[in-house]
Amino acid sequence: MSVNRSWVLAHRPEGAVAATDFGFREEAFTPSDLAQGEILVRSRIFSCAPTIRTWLNPPGRSYRGAIEIGEAIRGMAAVEVIASCHPRFSVGQLVTAVAPWQDYAVLRPDEAAVPVTAIPEGMEAVDAMTLYSPNSLTAYFGLFSVGEPRPGMTVLVSGGAGSVGAMVCQMARIAGCRVVAVAGGQEKCRWLMESCGADAAIDYRSQDLPGQLKAACPKGVDIFFDNVGGDILQAAVDRMVAHGRIVLCGQISAYDSGEPAAGPRDMMKLVYGRVRMEGFVVGDYAEHYPEAMRAIRAWAASGQIRSRVDLREGFDVLPSAFTELFKGQNMGTLLVQIPDP
Amino acid sequence: MSVNRSWVLAHRPEGAVAATDFGFREEAFTPSDLAQGEILVRSRIFSCAPTIRTWLNPPGRSYRGAIEIGEAIRGMAAVEVIASCHPRFSVGQLVTAVAPWQDYAVLRPDEAAVPVTAIPEGMEAVDAMTLYSPNSLTAYFGLFSVGEPRPGMTVLVSGGAGSVGAMVCQMARIAGCRVVAVAGGQEKCRWLMESCGADAAIDYRSQDLPGQLKAACPKGVDIFFDNVGGDILQAAVDRMVAHGRIVLCGQISAYDSGEPAAGPRDMMKLVYGRVRMEGFVVGDYAEHYPEAMRAIRAWAASGQIRSRVDLREGFDVLPSAFTELFKGQNMGTLLVQIPDP
Repeated sequence: MSVNRSWVLAHRPEGAVAATDFGFREEAFTPSDLAQGEILVRSRIFSCAPTIRTWLNPPGRSYRGAIEIGEAIRGMAAVEVIASCHPRFSVGQLVTAVAPWQDYAVLRPDEAAVPVTAIPEGMEAVDAMTLYSPNSLTAYFGLFSVGEPRPGMTVLVSGGAGSVGAMVCQMARIAGCRVVAVAGGQEKCRWLMESCGADAAIDYRSQDLPGQLKAACPKGVDIFFDNVGGDILQAAVDRMVAHGRIVLCGQISAYDSGEPAAGPRDMMKLVYGRVRMEGFVVGDYAEHYPEAMRAIRAWAASGQIRSRVDLREGFDVLPSAFTELFKGQNMGTLLVQIPDP
Repeated sequence: MSVNRSWVLAHRPEGAVAATDFGFREEAFTPSDLAQGEILVRSRIFSCAPTIRTWLNPPGRSYRGAIEIGEAIRGMAAVEVIASCHPRFSVGQLVTAVAPWQDYAVLRPDEAAVPVTAIPEGMEAVDAMTLYSPNSLTAYFGLFSVGEPRPGMTVLVSGGAGSVGAMVCQMARIAGCRVVAVAGGQEKCRWLMESCGADAAIDYRSQDLPGQLKAACPKGVDIFFDNVGGDILQAAVDRMVAHGRIVLCGQISAYDSGEPAAGPRDMMKLVYGRVRMEGFVVGDYAEHYPEAMRAIRAWAASGQIRSRVDLREGFDVLPSAFTELFKGQNMGTLLVQIPDP
C-alpha cells in the first residue's frame, strides 16, 4: 500500500489564480482490479499549460468541460503504465496523456479526448512533453493550416516565448517569413532573437506597443498568430495588411482576469482591411498528426527547431509553478517532474 | 446658363447624423471645356446608402477617404452624360457612378475607384440602382465567395431588409439554405418572410434577441452575414456552429453612434467554436462582376429575386432621406429621384 497525493480544485479563482485555489489531498492507494480498456499509471511529469486555467472557470466558459470543485486538476502529463487491461498498452511503457494531478490514476485511453500516446523508444519524456507535444502540433496546424504562410510574409506572434509561441516563431522562420515576436521582458526578447529565429522582438510591457509594432513591421503584418489577445490584438489589428489573417489560438491575457477576452474595438478595420480572423482547435487535425510529427522530427534533427524547458521538481510545487505562468515568470515550457517515491 | 445645386458637408456629425450637418449651395453653371477622359453628367437618381455615413467621419476612420468639410457629399448615382471627352461614353447615355450630390458634375471614369458603368439599353435606371447595383454584387460575393453556403445550412442575415440584406436573403434561399433575417419592426419582418424567402424573421427591437435567435436557429448558425454589428453580432457569436463563418459586410449600428463598432465580447468563443470571421470589400471581385451579373439577371428573369424601392423625389429631400436610413424608416433601397429642371 502506498499514498496517492492529489491537487484538487478547492474553489474557483476569481480573477488571478492563486496557489490557495488548489487543495491538497492524500489517500491510501491500493491498486484494485482494472476493467477492460483501463490502464493504471504513475505520474512522472506534468505540464503547466495556460489552457488548464480555462478549465477552472465555471462550466460553459470552457471548451471541454470545467473541472468540478473537489475534482483533481488535470493536464498533459507523461505517465508510466504500471498495470494494463488495454491491448495497446503494457506495463513499463511511458505515455503522454491528459491525466489528473495525482500520483496514481486509472485512464481509459479509448474514451480520451486527447489521444493517449506511447512515447517512442529512445525519446526522452521531456522531449515528448515539449518538442513533440500537442503544443508543437498546435503551432504547426495553426501556422500552416490556418495562417497559410508564404515566403517573405511578416508573421507576428504573441506569447512568443511560450511553448506554442516559440515553436510558431521557429516554424515561421522555416517557412521563409519575417518573424516578429511579442513577449514579456528583455530576457525573453533576447532569447527569441538569438535562439528562435525572430527578426525582431517586442516587450509587451513597453509603453508604446503600437509604435514598436509599426517599427518592427514596416510593411504591416500578414499573419498574426495570437496566443494572448487584449492590447496586443488591438495593436495588431491596426497593423494588418489587406487580406491579412489573424490565427486565434488562445487569449491568455484574459484567462486569469475574470473577464472574457474582448474582440477588436473597431470591426470596420476588419471589413476595410478584408482581414480574416479564425479560431482553431488542434484536435480537429488529428488525422494529420503523423505528417506534422514527421516534419517536426526532421526539423529537430537538423537543428532548425528546439524547445526550452523550465523544469521544476516535486509534486508539492505544482500549484505555485502553475500560477507563475500568468505572471510570465517561466522561461520556456513549464514542466514539473515527480521524483520516484 | 443654369444653376448647379449641391449638398456639401457643413460639419462632421457627432453621433447621429442630422439634416443640419449638410449645407446647401447654389452656383451658376456654365459648361466649360472638358479635358481628355472627362465626362459632364447631369444627376438623375441618388442612392442613400449607409456607407456614405462612414465618409462623413474624420479621415482615417473610413476606407476610401473621408469627405472634407465644404466638399460635396457623394454616393452611387444614375447620371446622364451631357458632354463627353471620353471614347467609351457618349451624350445621352445613362451611367451609374459614384457622383457628388450636385445637379451637374465632371467625372473622370478612368480614375474612378468604383467603375462608371453604362446602363444597358432597355434597363430601367431604378433597376440599375437596385437589382443590378453594387449592393447586389456585395450580397453575391459576400455570400458565395466569403460565406460559401451549402444546401441545408442556416444563414443568418442582419440588416435583412436593407438593400444588401434583402438580396442576401433571396440568394441564400436560392442556395438551398434556411434563411433567418433580422430587421427592425414587424412590417419589415413580414415582408422578409413573404417576399424575400426568409424562413424566420426577428425584430431586433425585441427584448430577447438571444432567445429569439435560438428559437429561429435551433441547429445554430452556419453563416452569419453581418451588416449591422453590435448586439446582433454578440448574439450571433453565441449561436455559431463549430466551423461557422461570419461574413463582415458592414457595421451600420455603429456608423451613426460616434463610436467604433466593437467586436465580440468573448474571443474564446471564436477559438473554441473554430469560427472564421472575415471582412470583405466588393471591389476586390471586380474581375468576376460579369459572371455575378449573369446570375443576378437570370434569377431576376425567373422571379427568384426582386428588389424593393423606397423612391423619394427632389434634390431638396436628399439630407432628410439620408438621415431616415439610420432610424430604419425606409422600406427597401432608398433612392432619391431628381426631376427634370
